Amino acid sequence: MGTRCVGVIDTTFARVDMGSVAEGVLKELLPDYRVTRYTVPGIKDLPGAAKRLIDMGCEGVITLGWVGPSQVDKYSYLAMSVGLITLSVLTGKVIVDVTVHEDESDDPRELREIAINRARAHAENLAKLLKGGLDALRPLAGQGIRQGRPSVGPIE
Amino acid sequence: MGTRCVGVIDTTFARVDMGSVAEGVLKELLPDYRVTRYTVPGIKDLPGAAKRLIDMGCEGVITLGWVGPSQVDKYSYLAMSVGLITLSVLTGKVIVDVTVHEDESDDPRELREIAINRARAHAENLAKLLKGGLDALRPLAGQGIRQGRPSVGPIE
Amino acid sequence: MGTRCVGVIDTTFARVDMGSVAEGVLKELLPDYRVTRYTVPGIKDLPGAAKRLIDMGCEGVITLGWVGPSQVDKYSYLAMSVGLITLSVLTGKVIVDVTVHEDESDDPRELREIAINRARAHAENLAKLLKGGLDALRPLAGQGIRQGRPSVGPIE
Amino acid sequence: MGTRCVGVIDTTFARVDMGSVAEGVLKELLPDYRVTRYTVPGIKDLPGAAKRLIDMGCEGVITLGWVGPSQVDKYSYLAMSVGLITLSVLTGKVIVDVTVHEDESDDPRELREIAINRARAHAENLAKLLKGGLDALRPLAGQGIRQGRPSVGPIE
Amino acid sequence: MGTRCVGVIDTTFARVDMGSVAEGVLKELLPDYRVTRYTVPGIKDLPGAAKRLIDMGCEGVITLGWVGPSQVDKYSYLAMSVGLITLSVLTGKVIVDVTVHEDESDDPRELREIAINRARAHAENLAKLLKGGLDALRPLAGQGIRQGRPSVGPIE
Repeated sequence: MGTRCVGVIDTTFARVDMGSVAEGVLKELLPDYRVTRYTVPGIKDLPGAAKRLIDMGCEGVITLGWVGPSQVDKYSYLAMSVGLITLSVLTGKVIVDVTVHEDESDDPRELREIAINRARAHAENLAKLLKGGLDALRPLAGQGIRQGRPSVGPIE
Repeated sequence: MGTRCVGVIDTTFARVDMGSVAEGVLKELLPDYRVTRYTVPGIKDLPGAAKRLIDMGCEGVITLGWVGPSQVDKYSYLAMSVGLITLSVLTGKVIVDVTVHEDESDDPRELREIAINRARAHAENLAKLLKGGLDALRPLAGQGIRQGRPSVGPIE
Repeated sequence: MGTRCVGVIDTTFARVDMGSVAEGVLKELLPDYRVTRYTVPGIKDLPGAAKRLIDMGCEGVITLGWVGPSQVDKYSYLAMSVGLITLSVLTGKVIVDVTVHEDESDDPRELREIAINRARAHAENLAKLLKGGLDALRPLAGQGIRQGRPSVGPIE
Repeated sequence: MGTRCVGVIDTTFARVDMGSVAEGVLKELLPDYRVTRYTVPGIKDLPGAAKRLIDMGCEGVITLGWVGPSQVDKYSYLAMSVGLITLSVLTGKVIVDVTVHEDESDDPRELREIAINRARAHAENLAKLLKGGLDALRPLAGQGIRQGRPSVGPIE
Repeated sequence: MGTRCVGVIDTTFARVDMGSVAEGVLKELLPDYRVTRYTVPGIKDLPGAAKRLIDMGCEGVITLGWVGPSQVDKYSYLAMSVGLITLSVLTGKVIVDVTVHEDESDDPRELREIAINRARAHAENLAKLLKGGLDALRPLAGQGIRQGRPSVGPIE
């Protein structure tokens, strides 16, 4: 177990265990890092939890949120997003904010696939950003990459 | 009475005494903590009150807000949410933000039940987060847990 | 005239002189405080003005905003609310944020009554919060109190 | 030319030269101040520009924004408003935030008149707030003052 | 290669390589600056990335965001905008925030042209603001300048 730390924060509200997906990816791609899991009730708890992991020494964090379909849920999404971004602006840490919205699909199985694929893809992004520095994602700039759904590609 | 402190903040605007529900749960589950009550007029007063309790030494806070049905009420909800999240980002303290929206049900008795159950369930969450640390809610990650209404469970 | 200070901030945009109502209440209920008036153009000027009064030593502030009926006015309301809440989170000071929305009533006389009653009720709240500490509003927790309109009471 | 400084910030996006209107008013009403002009591309650049002028020593700033008619433009308006208010909360400086919305009128000439009158009226407000202190606008409290359009007056 | 630094931050989500356009412009117009590229997954990652480049010494940053068409995408746009503006308010650095919205046009080729032209025009703005100081854009104040589409000109 290394002395560097990366955090995985998920919720009990989520209907898919995205945290374990992200944890697995990060353990494989960042063998020198300790992967710290932290589960909180819902999306509005994510920014404070991320702050606590950063204060414990984590260099990067992935948050995995599940957002309900109502307008109030969307305002909660907005507040959570502002909070995570504020934290990244104050600390400069790499915070990858993953969300799945319950109304992205009517089909639970499709929703589950989106969640798993998105968690995996963004955990890979976090590993690349922590290991590869500024150039890690440069080859994909402007390539219309999507997470959880097929990429759409660049406009030629 | 212990020397550690946890705060319960509610409002005079609310139509159900959620603060007393949360206070009872916290006294039972956190016997080593002093439970500090604080009542303010409405939801926009919650973040400032939470700051004051944190400055008085509280390690965690539960806020219990009641949100009206109008669009302006929802903007107030958004502002309150941003404020509580900002506070958690600045202090790293555990702030569990509970809200009941007056338009969640047309039936006052159902609304009352939602409020009481949600206050109780989130007070239990706060106790677990304060006592159990990062692993406290881990067994429920991705389990589709709801507060105030029946849990929906994970997507299998 | 005492050495403690409480602030009253209102606007030239408002159509009712709520500041004088609040000033009268605070002078009566907080005889040991100097009541400092400050008038600014509109609601977006309130948070900066509140910051200036706090920097001058005020322990608490009441802001009295008048909000127009358009969607842009509501976004201004949201920005103002976030600003006042941010100030309360940064300073821990008691900031009671009163607003009247021009579209709360079609009847100007009713609107005037709402404004006067709300300013008075919230000035009383501010006085109680400054004098009575954490327990001041405790007896009214969850009682469905409204300001400017009749209280709706708790759900039994 | 005095050593005190007041800032005028406008945009290249605007369709009326409101900055020159404000500059003229401030030079006349604040002869002891140096009036510093600063032009940026659009409204989202205003808060950062205001921060730079405050860091250069300006005691007050007037920003003159022009807001497009689309929903995205209104979100930009909201973000700009939050930013300017945050700056006023952090610094306590007097920041008068003037905006004209392209959809306030279908008639370009009326829009131009609104913009010029509003810039002038708010530049006068800024001068009064800087010179007159807390009491400068007190006589107009609750008087239903508007800028750029006729005042509506108080509700009697 | 100079010791001064300017940052270009783009995303893998974007469907046009706006970062390379901006990089080219800045290298030409700011020969004394090192142009630092940084690619992140999406728009919500831009403010944290900008903070990191500023901490590395960059005096100015251009961010190039691509925004989806859904309401959730627009809330993400709002959160990103608030974050970049907060960063500019905290640091006083010049941050030029460029976005293209996927629903600006139904025609992919038009969208591509908008993106390229807007990236170029705003990179030019950034260069002018860094080199020319407060007066750089003054001749264009109130001239109805647009980026990515034809300018609309002032209202005469």
